[in-house]
Amino acid sequence: MIQFPTGKQSDFVAVGRLCIDLNANEINRPMEDTVTFTKYVGGSPANICIGMARLGLNAGFVGKVADDQMGRFIVRYLEQNGISTSGVVTDRTGAVTGLAFTEIKSPTDCSILMYRDNVADLLLEPSEVNEELIAGTRLLLISGTALAQSPSREAVFQALEYARRHGAVIAFDLDYRPYTWKSDEETAVFYNLAAEKCDIIIGTREEFDMMEQFGENPERSDEITASKWFGYKAGIVVIKHGKEGSIAYTKDGNSHRADSFQAKVIKTFGAGDSYAAGFLYGLMQQWSVSDCMRYGSAAAAIVVSSHSCSDAMPTAKQVNDFIAQAEQGTQA
Amino acid sequence: MIQFPTGKQSDFVAVGRLCIDLNANEINRPMEDTVTFTKYVGGSPANICIGMARLGLNAGFVGKVADDQMGRFIVRYLEQNGISTSGVVTDRTGAVTGLAFTEIKSPTDCSILMYRDNVADLLLEPSEVNEELIAGTRLLLISGTALAQSPSREAVFQALEYARRHGAVIAFDLDYRPYTWKSDEETAVFYNLAAEKCDIIIGTREEFDMMEQFGENPERSDEITASKWFGYKAGIVVIKHGKEGSIAYTKDGNSHRADSFQAKVIKTFGAGDSYAAGFLYGLMQQWSVSDCMRYGSAAAAIVVSSHSCSDAMPTAKQVNDFIAQAEQGTQA
Amino acid sequence: MIQFPTGKQSDFVAVGRLCIDLNANEINRPMEDTVTFTKYVGGSPANICIGMARLGLNAGFVGKVADDQMGRFIVRYLEQNGISTSGVVTDRTGAVTGLAFTEIKSPTDCSILMYRDNVADLLLEPSEVNEELIAGTRLLLISGTALAQSPSREAVFQALEYARRHGAVIAFDLDYRPYTWKSDEETAVFYNLAAEKCDIIIGTREEFDMMEQFGENPERSDEITASKWFGYKAGIVVIKHGKEGSIAYTKDGNSHRADSFQAKVIKTFGAGDSYAAGFLYGLMQQWSVSDCMRYGSAAAAIVVSSHSCSDAMPTAKQVNDFIAQAEQGTQA
Amino acid sequence: MIQFPTGKQSDFVAVGRLCIDLNANEINRPMEDTVTFTKYVGGSPANICIGMARLGLNAGFVGKVADDQMGRFIVRYLEQNGISTSGVVTDRTGAVTGLAFTEIKSPTDCSILMYRDNVADLLLEPSEVNEELIAGTRLLLISGTALAQSPSREAVFQALEYARRHGAVIAFDLDYRPYTWKSDEETAVFYNLAAEKCDIIIGTREEFDMMEQFGENPERSDEITASKWFGYKAGIVVIKHGKEGSIAYTKDGNSHRADSFQAKVIKTFGAGDSYAAGFLYGLMQQWSVSDCMRYGSAAAAIVVSSHSCSDAMPTAKQVNDFIAQAEQGTQA
Repeated sequence: MIQFPTGKQSDFVAVGRLCIDLNANEINRPMEDTVTFTKYVGGSPANICIGMARLGLNAGFVGKVADDQMGRFIVRYLEQNGISTSGVVTDRTGAVTGLAFTEIKSPTDCSILMYRDNVADLLLEPSEVNEELIAGTRLLLISGTALAQSPSREAVFQALEYARRHGAVIAFDLDYRPYTWKSDEETAVFYNLAAEKCDIIIGTREEFDMMEQFGENPERSDEITASKWFGYKAGIVVIKHGKEGSIAYTKDGNSHRADSFQAKVIKTFGAGDSYAAGFLYGLMQQWSVSDCMRYGSAAAAIVVSSHSCSDAMPTAKQVNDFIAQAEQGTQA
Repeated sequence: MIQFPTGKQSDFVAVGRLCIDLNANEINRPMEDTVTFTKYVGGSPANICIGMARLGLNAGFVGKVADDQMGRFIVRYLEQNGISTSGVVTDRTGAVTGLAFTEIKSPTDCSILMYRDNVADLLLEPSEVNEELIAGTRLLLISGTALAQSPSREAVFQALEYARRHGAVIAFDLDYRPYTWKSDEETAVFYNLAAEKCDIIIGTREEFDMMEQFGENPERSDEITASKWFGYKAGIVVIKHGKEGSIAYTKDGNSHRADSFQAKVIKTFGAGDSYAAGFLYGLMQQWSVSDCMRYGSAAAAIVVSSHSCSDAMPTAKQVNDFIAQAEQGTQA
Repeated sequence: MIQFPTGKQSDFVAVGRLCIDLNANEINRPMEDTVTFTKYVGGSPANICIGMARLGLNAGFVGKVADDQMGRFIVRYLEQNGISTSGVVTDRTGAVTGLAFTEIKSPTDCSILMYRDNVADLLLEPSEVNEELIAGTRLLLISGTALAQSPSREAVFQALEYARRHGAVIAFDLDYRPYTWKSDEETAVFYNLAAEKCDIIIGTREEFDMMEQFGENPERSDEITASKWFGYKAGIVVIKHGKEGSIAYTKDGNSHRADSFQAKVIKTFGAGDSYAAGFLYGLMQQWSVSDCMRYGSAAAAIVVSSHSCSDAMPTAKQVNDFIAQAEQGTQA
Repeated sequence: MIQFPTGKQSDFVAVGRLCIDLNANEINRPMEDTVTFTKYVGGSPANICIGMARLGLNAGFVGKVADDQMGRFIVRYLEQNGISTSGVVTDRTGAVTGLAFTEIKSPTDCSILMYRDNVADLLLEPSEVNEELIAGTRLLLISGTALAQSPSREAVFQALEYARRHGAVIAFDLDYRPYTWKSDEETAVFYNLAAEKCDIIIGTREEFDMMEQFGENPERSDEITASKWFGYKAGIVVIKHGKEGSIAYTKDGNSHRADSFQAKVIKTFGAGDSYAAGFLYGLMQQWSVSDCMRYGSAAAAIVVSSHSCSDAMPTAKQVNDFIAQAEQGTQA
């Protein structure tokens, strides 16, 4: 199992995208028919970081925000959630905040309209990565989107170097989104370079397929995928198969399957982020892999039943209550 | 006075920006404190075109929208307002719809957070300008923002050439916004090239100053400004001085001053667009310049008292009622 | 005929491209087989300007050079030819000097390998255009290549505005080259905007076709082409038909045909530039159009018999001797 | 020492820059005074590859050339030197061939005027990297310049992955040049990522300093530099100190100093490339490190005494004769 360092002042630091979700208030219809939107902090690593803070961990963020009302809203929200923003720098070039307008046609037919041109989060420079913050944390999370463009791409590799230098455990949430990448090949090359340096890798089967496009795993075998990364630095590889659940491989040769909880789904957004928060939280408590997966699944079930992602991230009490109810069969 | 051609099938065609306004629902506070936004069609020429249609004219639009929910919403809204969209083409490159988030700190302290990177409206190509639509109209309106970038810039000059070829009157709403322009000099050069070809030019004193930065009017004299354009093609030049009202010069050597109506101001956005619609509408009715200015001012007073720009554009009955009430001193 | 202003301190100013020709020393073979190259100043307006200076006129240049050895070589060569370089500014952004490697497979099969990325000449800013130099000259020459990209494009329009303001005659050498233009439509729009402001327009039939791509001259009639520009400001329009000679239209309704002289052709490069220099020189002497064309053709015949373009530009004595020899049938 | 695989069909494959040197024929003066230039194939990995072929090895190249006369000249020259060009693809986007104009003011004052905008060599795609060629070779050489921009950057990492997969030894010639890099930080990040995967690393002290700018070696100690890379994959690290000679560290803890031979220096260009060729050749013969350094120094002395780089790369006989002469003190 993963050994986390002790004697660090913080538990968790995420690096990467900070953006805004604009969620349609009128749901179960196409966006052409929606009129009002509600604003939330968004971005996969932001959501995970908020999730970790809600679960009670001491968390911080390394990222870049626009010098505008959206950027200030993001910083304020992180601080209101007790997250250290000493690693969040402000862009001075006139970049904007990334936006995600969500469209919820039905609980199973959701899509996102993204604004990712000239966004502040991709302008984080390697020299702006706060070494002290990373030196003082037990777990660093990187997220694939931050690799999509320079200089944010280099900033991620710099963060990985600082984590290596100071002994932080590194988790990689693949979080692949096609925006801003120039080609699948470019994506594969940098995802692989980053994954070589990580202890925990979490992604969907499709995301791992994209990383293996240069021919080494034509059968798309989960086992081959996992064993490749055990040949580098990884100790745990989690591969998600959508409705069919997920499977976690550990370096000792074991694997663990998990199913999702039943939930009154409003939308699917945020499921992966809340799962990652719950799973990583469990690992830091030294729980069994199965318990970690169960905890992540419960957190995901809570978030997909809510209107937002970040704002719906549950506390430990909420997750525990949810699991208790589910076990009693009293879950609605 | 301006002579409009007869025997044309439509009254008015605007070319340029089509975008989305996201107006804060919670007003009189900074945007950091707003949570929900309402979506409207926006963009200065779009607003003017909607205004002209509301006033009863046969109107059409030449522009480009994104291939997404926002773009489809815009086209649908124009059609719902009886505006011909045969000249509106759809981008296929993945461009987005321009956004304007409005912040209303107080009725006199309003600002806009713009998203203008990779927007569809600036991708209109000269070959996509619908010659038939322009050939069939009495008045073409161009708007300065569309000159800010290629290929939209060339499309505007192509529209001007078609209007010249087919005898349409041309109005130029300067509508200068600093986004996407590379330098003030670039702005001045293209604004001047366009203004040389226009019959009616409407702008603020600051906008005309920007066009005269290469030294020909150091005293910033309205008369020198107007007479410069009478040396080219213009018949009317309207120079707006904010709270101090506006002044219209005509080629015959006359000038006309107008004041604004009193209004319960919610926000200042949309004042210029509704003024332009009212003023141009009057000119097409062959009213006196003073009456045109009065009509424009009344339309502006109605719009600044409302939450939106486009959606608040008044009908002729609303403008007439407003003027009648104002004359009776019964205006609230 | 064109009336040139009097009382000006200089005869001629060209604005636009300054670059380097690298002419293959080993000729009549593909460039793959050439090993050494000789360096010359190049660029159409540079060649014409050098031609005018060689013919005895007081000439100057408005342009931008790279801050490197190539840029310094260009400035020095202009000065050695008595051309004022007070209007030549130096780039500080790290741009390079445009290059043209010439390949002479046979006297009639010549091509050019161009380096036009990030070139200094296209970075001339409107504010860097020397108004004083243009105010003090009788004839301003613009060249189409300088319209190919911002900010050089705006600088050309600024130069046109200064020439108009100060009463200089304006000549436009179309000099269309496909490099750096984004589309034919963009080319047509800006060529037309510039040509509207010019007194003398010189180009090939193909160049005029490109300007008329939006449908106004489907028969490609020279007369329609010329009459279009007489409707704006032009007094003379010269249309070149390659081997079939050229035709000059004048606003008074006359036209003049001219044939080329026989010459021992080494390469075809530089023929157009030397023709333009000779023709414009003649106009400034108030010669008949036919004599101007004859003088231009003689200058062209001299240049195509030489290895270089700029360096081979003839003096008045050389042109006169050439014509005398040709008339005596003693031309080699 | 480095163990090279056996049973491979080729000895050496280089990946990266293929370009053209234009060497001033008139030397010992500034380039402003030079008039003619001679054309050679250039680019550091090209020079090293030509050097290896001249020394008798079976060599190939992975790279991209422009679809023009310069590109065809390069491919032809490689083939004339017996180098496999099955891995050289041709650009179809209109990119140009990189150029290096050399200026030789004196034997010790040499500089280069580079053309590196829109060059074909930086457009090599990961999918264009010939896996078969790399699978069949004993030694792969990468060169830092190819890391300067996408997609060439990704292609290098793909080549490294193929070399790892098929067991080729990997040499990294740092060859840092500031062109096209956006920042020193970007340079450091990618140089480090690449160096982690290499068996042999050769560079100047300044190049290693640039890689260590994030603070891990403030004293700029050669030993700390070398030991860092031994912590990854390297077996030999060569650090060059200009006139003071070079030092090679081996993983077994030893270090070896070498001085340069005396030579009639014409210019300093090409010294590093010929050194690298000689040194790597020696390693492939399983010579002692000292003998390899001596062989590299002799090759360098021969090249700096010549007008070109690539064309002057010596054969094994030339190097042996040079060393023999030097040992007899008969070297001029």
